[in-house]
Amino acid sequence: MDDRDHVITAKNLSRADIETVLDRAAAIERDPPDRDRHAGRLLGLCFFEPSTRTRMSFEAAIKRLGGDALDMGPVDSSSATKGESLADTVRVIEGYADALVLRHPSEGAATMASEFVDVPLLNAGDGAGQHPTQTLLDLYTMRENAGGLADLTVGIMGDLKYGRTVHSLAYALTKFDASQHFVSPESLRLPRSVRYDLHEAGAQVREHDDLDEVLSELDVLYVTRIQRERFPDENEYRAVAGEYRIDAETLERARDECIVMHPLPRVDEIAPAVDATEHAHYFEQAHNGVPVRMALLDLLLDDTDGEEAADATDDSANGGSR
Amino acid sequence: MDDRDHVITAKNLSRADIETVLDRAAAIERDPPDRDRHAGRLLGLCFFEPSTRTRMSFEAAIKRLGGDALDMGPVDSSSATKGESLADTVRVIEGYADALVLRHPSEGAATMASEFVDVPLLNAGDGAGQHPTQTLLDLYTMRENAGGLADLTVGIMGDLKYGRTVHSLAYALTKFDASQHFVSPESLRLPRSVRYDLHEAGAQVREHDDLDEVLSELDVLYVTRIQRERFPDENEYRAVAGEYRIDAETLERARDECIVMHPLPRVDEIAPAVDATEHAHYFEQAHNGVPVRMALLDLLLDDTDGEEAADATDDSANGGSR
Amino acid sequence: MDDRDHVITAKNLSRADIETVLDRAAAIERDPPDRDRHAGRLLGLCFFEPSTRTRMSFEAAIKRLGGDALDMGPVDSSSATKGESLADTVRVIEGYADALVLRHPSEGAATMASEFVDVPLLNAGDGAGQHPTQTLLDLYTMRENAGGLADLTVGIMGDLKYGRTVHSLAYALTKFDASQHFVSPESLRLPRSVRYDLHEAGAQVREHDDLDEVLSELDVLYVTRIQRERFPDENEYRAVAGEYRIDAETLERARDECIVMHPLPRVDEIAPAVDATEHAHYFEQAHNGVPVRMALLDLLLDDTDGEEAADATDDSANGGSR
Repeated sequence: MDDRDHVITAKNLSRADIETVLDRAAAIERDPPDRDRHAGRLLGLCFFEPSTRTRMSFEAAIKRLGGDALDMGPVDSSSATKGESLADTVRVIEGYADALVLRHPSEGAATMASEFVDVPLLNAGDGAGQHPTQTLLDLYTMRENAGGLADLTVGIMGDLKYGRTVHSLAYALTKFDASQHFVSPESLRLPRSVRYDLHEAGAQVREHDDLDEVLSELDVLYVTRIQRERFPDENEYRAVAGEYRIDAETLERARDECIVMHPLPRVDEIAPAVDATEHAHYFEQAHNGVPVRMALLDLLLDDTDGEEAADATDDSANGGSR
Repeated sequence: MDDRDHVITAKNLSRADIETVLDRAAAIERDPPDRDRHAGRLLGLCFFEPSTRTRMSFEAAIKRLGGDALDMGPVDSSSATKGESLADTVRVIEGYADALVLRHPSEGAATMASEFVDVPLLNAGDGAGQHPTQTLLDLYTMRENAGGLADLTVGIMGDLKYGRTVHSLAYALTKFDASQHFVSPESLRLPRSVRYDLHEAGAQVREHDDLDEVLSELDVLYVTRIQRERFPDENEYRAVAGEYRIDAETLERARDECIVMHPLPRVDEIAPAVDATEHAHYFEQAHNGVPVRMALLDLLLDDTDGEEAADATDDSANGGSR
Repeated sequence: MDDRDHVITAKNLSRADIETVLDRAAAIERDPPDRDRHAGRLLGLCFFEPSTRTRMSFEAAIKRLGGDALDMGPVDSSSATKGESLADTVRVIEGYADALVLRHPSEGAATMASEFVDVPLLNAGDGAGQHPTQTLLDLYTMRENAGGLADLTVGIMGDLKYGRTVHSLAYALTKFDASQHFVSPESLRLPRSVRYDLHEAGAQVREHDDLDEVLSELDVLYVTRIQRERFPDENEYRAVAGEYRIDAETLERARDECIVMHPLPRVDEIAPAVDATEHAHYFEQAHNGVPVRMALLDLLLDDTDGEEAADATDDSANGGSR
């Protein structure tokens, strides 16, 4: 990845880009980098929406690479409340940091912001838009636990309409020729535009009302949260949420090797009894945020490092985005 | 202390455990550890209630050991507001960090959380429950300034009913055969259950309405804050708070060597004029949070360190809890 | 600067003090210090008011010097909400840190706080009072871009009544014999007391209603935000704000070399089209917060460092304040 590369969307990450990152993450897990690998590098954290796991795992990642983080802090105590534009905020913070992570409630914010800064900018979620680093850690978790990424049969269940995680993942899985099964209530089906884009990209997609139509074929079951606030009526919410809930009994109808994933936080979608089964991989998935984000940062910072890191770089593969 | 040890309650810390920690703290103050002693180690800070001094002194402690901290941030911007369980939150964060510090409004939270994680978990206060690291720094302050911990005469004054600090301290002092004098208004006396437990443990306990009954005998006078919100009536609060307030004139009736402590923050319980007297040790007490928490972290992380720290460990004493 | 020096006000910084800091900042930009120059040093950040750029650039500064920061966190989750006095808070935090940065809504807070602590305390803004580190980075930006600090013609425009930035800057510019032109609506003119002090110090000051009276002579045009909340009437605000707004067309009437500065955040005072012109120096100005604050911290911490930094110090000039 070269100097001014940004990581904005999973859509534009090529299969080769993705493999470069996942390979680097695997290498980092096998052989943790020197503690001073990126000593002195600062990662600016610009979270215009709250985040626990994304923010903390980015912070853990840069610190485990020997660098440090600079947090803008909660948005209600930032300059944004004084009317500062996003463009101005990121242009100021880029003067303090060597790379930026941006989460913002507006779709397209990361693309816009990236046009104003010279340091690498990583999109950590932009409204209903994309969340590419989540997708990379999802793929890494599948690759490590489902025997690689080629030709997987993946079920994605829950809120498919509003979930940016789901859309980013679906685009990426298409590049690895996965069979994708989308399981949701009628009211939370994939948006038409996403379905169209997937179709154009040659994705193998089927949609289902009922998990049992496909459960026994799945290598991966990816569950997402159905949010109460999507439903005008509390009773309708309860009915739907109850129907798309996984418990240990559900998983008796799955293949032994089927792995269950969830971007977390979960509420009721996966019963606690599932945690103790071999199927459960959602905590590991969250933990994989660290090596995957270390890999990304390592690739992005390598090119901006001076001579002290030059001998440590080997990113000959084209891992760039955009 | 071995690999999976947690520090949950002062009740279960043995006298030997306590002495191991205090000895290590004294050694750290005499001879600060190498700056890279725990380089690369990350301490996860999970504060479900606000905290200034506990959080900052844990953060200072891990940083002065060469490591770094990862802060979950304020609870109102965390996943907990999306309905995530405490068990899930700590299981996620343990994947980012080498040890966890937990403060939570519910008594028993730390015990429960510790059952879900493999990294050491330190209780930094659980509701009306325990606050063992506060107790360790309290004991350290007494040991350094009152000529050791054996056979002390200690007065504890203020809110003895709701103060978790007081309960933790009383259990610990019992192990060192202290004479304990509890001074409070009738409505804020020690809870019956705590009195019972102290009695069972063989504590020497007396209760008083009036500090002057015992002031002249004290080696240590430990003052706590009486909180306005404990009283339905503002006038009753004022009357009580005024009666259990220390000023320079009060201390003329104390021994010259009597040290005054307070877990801070104080409001009106100790007059500012006391600050300049030889009795005042409450700021030193707050500052002792750093070496004591460094000692605890050093002991807990030693066992999980790889070969690079192995030669520096000598925790042959059993300092573990639970 | 010696051991107990604090940086409270720009008024009391001598021309030699200022030059010492700016020279050190320039040296730091040319030749960044070793990554472990101040390894192990902790800077306590005590922001009783929100701040994005001041807080982040102090944090970047100490981290780029090899040290680390300890943040008190937002004031609504601090001990202050339990009724703790400022004096107590800073006395506690000085036990955790090697220097303190304080922002507080009350004028005089930094002076008061400095009387209670032994570590260096830097004023990062006290209400309508002073903001000396902002002034230092303003002067640094002028010196680097307007051919030195001697005999500059500087226009300062906008809210001159409430802007602490403006008052700090005006006192400092007086020491460098600048011609100062203050441009504002009648209702936002310099306070009488500031005008009096500047007059006493021998400042060359003129006041204007209209920027065009002086624009063509300026080496520096320093723009500040006019805040809506200063005006009881929305229409009056709009009229005034529109009149004291800079766009690319305005700057056609300025010298080619005239640099435009702004302490940020801006709202509408400078049109985005100005950003692309050679005049625009406000983002560079914000970025200069890092080398200037590095220089200050470097000077203040040098004297408190032990032998490990002794060979790196050369602050023979008297850079102290108070």
